[in-house]
Amino acid sequence: MSKNKLIKVIFEPDGMDVFVPAGTLLSKAASAAGRAVEAPCGGMGTCGKCKVIVSGVVGEPDVAERRALTEEELASGIRLACRTKVVGEISVTIPESSRSMVQKILSQGVLRECALMSSVTKAYCELAAPTLEDERAEFERLAVYLEAQDIQLKPNLNVIRGLSSRMRSGDYKVTAVMYGDELIAVECGDTTEQCYGIAYDLGSTTIVGYLMNLKTGDEMAVSAVMNPQVVYGDDLVARISFATTQEGGAQMLQSAAVDAMNRIASDLAASAKIFLGNIYKATVVGNTCMSHLLLGIDVSSLGQSPYVPSVCSDITLPAHELGLEFCSEAKVVVLPNIAGFVGADTVGVMLSSMCEDDGTTRLAVDIGTNGEMALLHGGKTYVCSAAAGPAFEGAGISCGMRGAPGAIDSVVIGETVRISTVNNRKPIGICGSGLVDAVAQMLDAGIVDDTGRMLSPVDAGFLPEAVSQRIIETERGVEFVLATKQESGSGKAITLTAGDIRHLQLAKGSIHAAIQTLIKTAGTSDDQLSQILLAGAFGNYIRVESAIRIGLIPPIDREKVVSIGNAAGAGARLALLCEQETALARQIAHKARHLELAVLPDYQMELMERMMFPSAMELVGE
Amino acid sequence: MSKNKLIKVIFEPDGMDVFVPAGTLLSKAASAAGRAVEAPCGGMGTCGKCKVIVSGVVGEPDVAERRALTEEELASGIRLACRTKVVGEISVTIPESSRSMVQKILSQGVLRECALMSSVTKAYCELAAPTLEDERAEFERLAVYLEAQDIQLKPNLNVIRGLSSRMRSGDYKVTAVMYGDELIAVECGDTTEQCYGIAYDLGSTTIVGYLMNLKTGDEMAVSAVMNPQVVYGDDLVARISFATTQEGGAQMLQSAAVDAMNRIASDLAASAKIFLGNIYKATVVGNTCMSHLLLGIDVSSLGQSPYVPSVCSDITLPAHELGLEFCSEAKVVVLPNIAGFVGADTVGVMLSSMCEDDGTTRLAVDIGTNGEMALLHGGKTYVCSAAAGPAFEGAGISCGMRGAPGAIDSVVIGETVRISTVNNRKPIGICGSGLVDAVAQMLDAGIVDDTGRMLSPVDAGFLPEAVSQRIIETERGVEFVLATKQESGSGKAITLTAGDIRHLQLAKGSIHAAIQTLIKTAGTSDDQLSQILLAGAFGNYIRVESAIRIGLIPPIDREKVVSIGNAAGAGARLALLCEQETALARQIAHKARHLELAVLPDYQMELMERMMFPSAMELVGE
Repeated sequence: MSKNKLIKVIFEPDGMDVFVPAGTLLSKAASAAGRAVEAPCGGMGTCGKCKVIVSGVVGEPDVAERRALTEEELASGIRLACRTKVVGEISVTIPESSRSMVQKILSQGVLRECALMSSVTKAYCELAAPTLEDERAEFERLAVYLEAQDIQLKPNLNVIRGLSSRMRSGDYKVTAVMYGDELIAVECGDTTEQCYGIAYDLGSTTIVGYLMNLKTGDEMAVSAVMNPQVVYGDDLVARISFATTQEGGAQMLQSAAVDAMNRIASDLAASAKIFLGNIYKATVVGNTCMSHLLLGIDVSSLGQSPYVPSVCSDITLPAHELGLEFCSEAKVVVLPNIAGFVGADTVGVMLSSMCEDDGTTRLAVDIGTNGEMALLHGGKTYVCSAAAGPAFEGAGISCGMRGAPGAIDSVVIGETVRISTVNNRKPIGICGSGLVDAVAQMLDAGIVDDTGRMLSPVDAGFLPEAVSQRIIETERGVEFVLATKQESGSGKAITLTAGDIRHLQLAKGSIHAAIQTLIKTAGTSDDQLSQILLAGAFGNYIRVESAIRIGLIPPIDREKVVSIGNAAGAGARLALLCEQETALARQIAHKARHLELAVLPDYQMELMERMMFPSAMELVGE
Repeated sequence: MSKNKLIKVIFEPDGMDVFVPAGTLLSKAASAAGRAVEAPCGGMGTCGKCKVIVSGVVGEPDVAERRALTEEELASGIRLACRTKVVGEISVTIPESSRSMVQKILSQGVLRECALMSSVTKAYCELAAPTLEDERAEFERLAVYLEAQDIQLKPNLNVIRGLSSRMRSGDYKVTAVMYGDELIAVECGDTTEQCYGIAYDLGSTTIVGYLMNLKTGDEMAVSAVMNPQVVYGDDLVARISFATTQEGGAQMLQSAAVDAMNRIASDLAASAKIFLGNIYKATVVGNTCMSHLLLGIDVSSLGQSPYVPSVCSDITLPAHELGLEFCSEAKVVVLPNIAGFVGADTVGVMLSSMCEDDGTTRLAVDIGTNGEMALLHGGKTYVCSAAAGPAFEGAGISCGMRGAPGAIDSVVIGETVRISTVNNRKPIGICGSGLVDAVAQMLDAGIVDDTGRMLSPVDAGFLPEAVSQRIIETERGVEFVLATKQESGSGKAITLTAGDIRHLQLAKGSIHAAIQTLIKTAGTSDDQLSQILLAGAFGNYIRVESAIRIGLIPPIDREKVVSIGNAAGAGARLALLCEQETALARQIAHKARHLELAVLPDYQMELMERMMFPSAMELVGE
């Protein structure tokens, strides 16, 4: 990451600005400013959906832009956000047609029942105004009133500071807001019905917020934004490097996260028609690096072996200390971590899906760039993380893209090749779940063998012609055409290369090897697994048969594999609604046995083995 | 208080600056900057001890200055700090000869025994450095180590933020500092021997700090400064008005107090040769207004009837939040108040001197501009405050002054009039204890009668000539000369006027009436008093016989009246050294019954009666 000064980019018409390093793509800058633009072609510059109007100096248009834009458009300052880099201070207008909704963000997770005991309570008090005969202090006046209702009250200095004028402006008819026994706000009149909280899933790519009614336990609204930190680094390694090498970098990453969380809060408040000041509690799950950055904790030790976090305990702090614009003394509870690469998000998954020990053996897997997994067996839990690489998120794959409209998300190979895409648009690339599906079908059809080698066109005679003609030789070697240039929405054929298959083998191999290492360390076996829980977006969209076919997960009965959606977010919601759930999260984090795969020879052996695709025989054999 | 902008005054050679309202005397500005100047004449401009060198625009010299300074001195910028007012930004040099030590600040108080249980503990830890086989988080590494010693540890986010680099720079050999179970600092190496705290008595005139060794309970140093808030208002009423009417006034008063507390801390650290960073706890006693101002709590309700504080509970906050330059997460405990005009200082007095209930009836009195008193009877305590006016502090009296060098502090009238002064300098005025002494002697000699009327010269034939010739008639009426113009160090006679006697009557009457109201409310009487404890400077220097003679306190056996020195400060030290003492202070504050004299008709009746001086008969009668 360069040490250069950051450059200001202003987004019109509302003047939202953001500071980014030189060379940042406008699309990323837009995302950092919470102004997502359409990017169905995945940033290849082919779809022309991300047109923006630029005012100020930018670099020369590249070949893709020259192809996608007319001379007239270029002359009037129109550029593609996905190709244009920031070189100096500019102002950017995003036309309505280029604005994007955040797509396919997985916000739902199964929410199990829990007690409603959020620690936030409100009490309406009609107090006697002070007189010379009754000179009790404002705080003690309130405390004595509440004591009669068996409520103990402890002062919070920031509330005390303005208490006297608040009491008088409320004419001593006020609502006391308590977190536990601490007085966190005093409001004029009776506001006992307004009592809300937000559960955040602070992902490195996406941040999701759930607005919950703390009086009823109801979910009132959900909102999600891209994590604007992406502008400072695509992945955690890049962000840690930015935080530790760029002056003020850690603060920038922190503010970016806080800004996004505030943006979500505003959205939620607007859609549920509530006041931000009536939000008294928030919970946050995220990986260890994300929560360290949010809390302003030094992340340098997370960037180098042995990847030691500064803290695993849960941390509670007042909203104003983080800059979150709720009730000023609202409590923000950042849930506990387990290790440097197994964070509160995994704890959230375990809390929402694995904390009832019914004696069975269960596995939860959350697959992203990092795969985190937890195994419950014999009353104990074992967790680990494996670096899968970005293949499952559609990156590092020649025609890969995120699960946005136009992404191929399922493939069927029979007499011919049939595909489906997100939102049924013309295909422009392939996303992670599509990749798994495609390769599973190619394995079944014999286009790819157990070792990952792709059939050469000359050996493809046994296939239906409509299929065999899709195996082609190019300068990159053998490729399989999922969509021809004519079928494609980007004007380019969408293919899988031999290299793509290798990427997938590495990714799925590392996940499955990690699963096997957990299973062996726990002293159990595949056939004892009563359930595999797939958490997260990838786990939600993937076709289970295909995941088993390529050997991403152990070959167990299809019915035993359950997608549990945003289980991390569900954990955050449980902890928001119930103090006992937070205590449970603490126990889960404390008791989980973390396996460091890097030092386990077993894992290396497994990895070698699990890079291969399972033979049809192996799968039947189970 | 004017709404004008504040003016900067710089004190050389060290460049300390202070912002004061236009019209502030240089002597007050100096005091606000912690640079006290000599003022033996009490600011009358007659002693010429407070010469300073001024650079910048100031007003014209007044008559007193023209008399005290030569033309040459005036030409070279020399002025009297006690007469020169600030009109614009200036720089002031105080010559060595004009510098003053703060005089007769009462820092000692009787410190009773208490347990040593300050909540601050330190533990040296030799930890294993992280490896891939041992990836525990930094905090949990420490927590597990300490758990083996039965120490529970809770994280403090600010400590966690830098924990990783601290651990590494200490090579995992570190000292953990805990307040209760909260980790408040981690220091490299073994620093367990360095463990200190400061007890503050935050008076409206003087601030005293006691440096205590929290490992041994020893007092290591004492330091005191004038309260620099005096520049914004002499008394509480003026400061409340400044805080509530001047923009940013409350913040200025707060910073002034914090600056002074930091100055004391630096002095203490320098004289005891310790590091400020090894101070982990401070306790503060002060009146309710002073502690509200320190904590940034709105004082407007303290400035108007019914004088309701915002809070009475004790408040604990980290040092950095107040701007105190100790260990950043050191805890500052501001002790509890009882009412708007009975604050933590009175609680401190009660804690150090009255908390053992041996079944006797005891009275503690702390006399200043406000007199606060507490009566213990039948296991219950009764407290009240009475506005005595400034007579006991030497103000409002024609030749009155503080107890600085040259103040008459005792008077004996026999064949002649003999006086003694502070530091045995030539007399330049009379302080509170001298005033009480003088009037007691004048009563005994028959110069003043029970009603307070002074003998006229024509009726003074019965007195020795050396005494009677000191009764003179002036345009102000009858005066009694304590020191003639020739005997005086100021070139002016030092006299007591009929008006001075009236001021004293009012002052002593209000105190004694308050005492009687307490005694009657408690259902007891003077002769059941087993002890009267006199707290504070005035109580320390006053001659008990004289106090009884003028009827300031009830006429009980001389031996039953005990000066207990700075008992408020002693209370702060107890709370510093022992958590249970803080709990006791909380109980004392909670249980004390506060009498609001303004609404008690009894008090008004008593006041009428107690304005008179007791007759010799009454005193003998007891």
